Amino acid sequence: MAKTNKSDFLVNQVRRYLEPGPIVLVSSRWQDKTNIMTLGWHTVLEFSPSLVGLMISTGNHSHHMIRESRECVINLPTTKLTDTVVGIGNTSGAEIDKFEEFGLTVEEASEVDAPLISFECRLHEDALVERYNFFIFEVVKAHVAPSPKHPETLHYTGDGVFMVSGKIISRRSQFRPEML
Amino acid sequence: MAKTNKSDFLVNQVRRYLEPGPIVLVSSRWQDKTNIMTLGWHTVLEFSPSLVGLMISTGNHSHHMIRESRECVINLPTTKLTDTVVGIGNTSGAEIDKFEEFGLTVEEASEVDAPLISFECRLHEDALVERYNFFIFEVVKAHVAPSPKHPETLHYTGDGVFMVSGKIISRRSQFRPEML
Repeated sequence: MAKTNKSDFLVNQVRRYLEPGPIVLVSSRWQDKTNIMTLGWHTVLEFSPSLVGLMISTGNHSHHMIRESRECVINLPTTKLTDTVVGIGNTSGAEIDKFEEFGLTVEEASEVDAPLISFECRLHEDALVERYNFFIFEVVKAHVAPSPKHPETLHYTGDGVFMVSGKIISRRSQFRPEML
Repeated sequence: MAKTNKSDFLVNQVRRYLEPGPIVLVSSRWQDKTNIMTLGWHTVLEFSPSLVGLMISTGNHSHHMIRESRECVINLPTTKLTDTVVGIGNTSGAEIDKFEEFGLTVEEASEVDAPLISFECRLHEDALVERYNFFIFEVVKAHVAPSPKHPETLHYTGDGVFMVSGKIISRRSQFRPEML
């Protein structure tokens, strides 16, 4: 494997895990409170700096916390965490402490028994927050467990139904080198 | 199934097919030229109006065409179209006519032998186009073949590798009704 610097590492990991469009868990902390929410409305936006866009509705308790703290952590749950994902998505941090309820580790903002894949983010651009609840974050640090290389992830379709990704197809040999 | 109006139909279809984060083919037309590109950097942004955000780099020939025409069509390819997707992603409309090269139908902006799933879009917001190449479109019409209900889609991870989605998991019974 080619030697990569920190910036390359971030870009590669963000693409690998977020570009496929999985449901993610977004955790936040503000004034000694923590919260976590499910999110399917996100996109990669730029390689360098490593930017991602997240649509976090004002209907989510996390919206205000993230707007104030200007930080969040994006965590990638695998299919092993399906019921936890559904639980987190169907409760509100305004009513319960979700970290306690779902047995999550606050320190790492990661999930027990899950591969540790998470991205620490700092707010980069808030121009569309007021009108569209669209936050642009810079990924400043990535935590990625070495295996599995392609964890089974959940992709939300609405209506309580998830699609599952995990199987891979490589077409690397058909790519122009500059497109990889 | 509950009776739905046109707006509900759009929202349901956009969520079902775009929220899971597949690679899409974005076609455009400007001054009698057509073009088509692959895109993995997109997100749903709003239910009503039905808004989606697309990051279309200036490095893509389509960027200028879409910026001028203020329209595009988002097409969803299935795994049957894998090689076509790779071909479209590794060529430029500045050099070839991709519709001709890949045997695509201009009229429908859809792919031969593929389920017709496409979304006609009109530019809704260009505030972040200059700085981030981020276009917010309103989906004004959806074309969705009735089957398969959950087509096998491609999700790009970088490095020439795609993940495949198709298998589904339903947790509908665990959702609060207002969350569906």
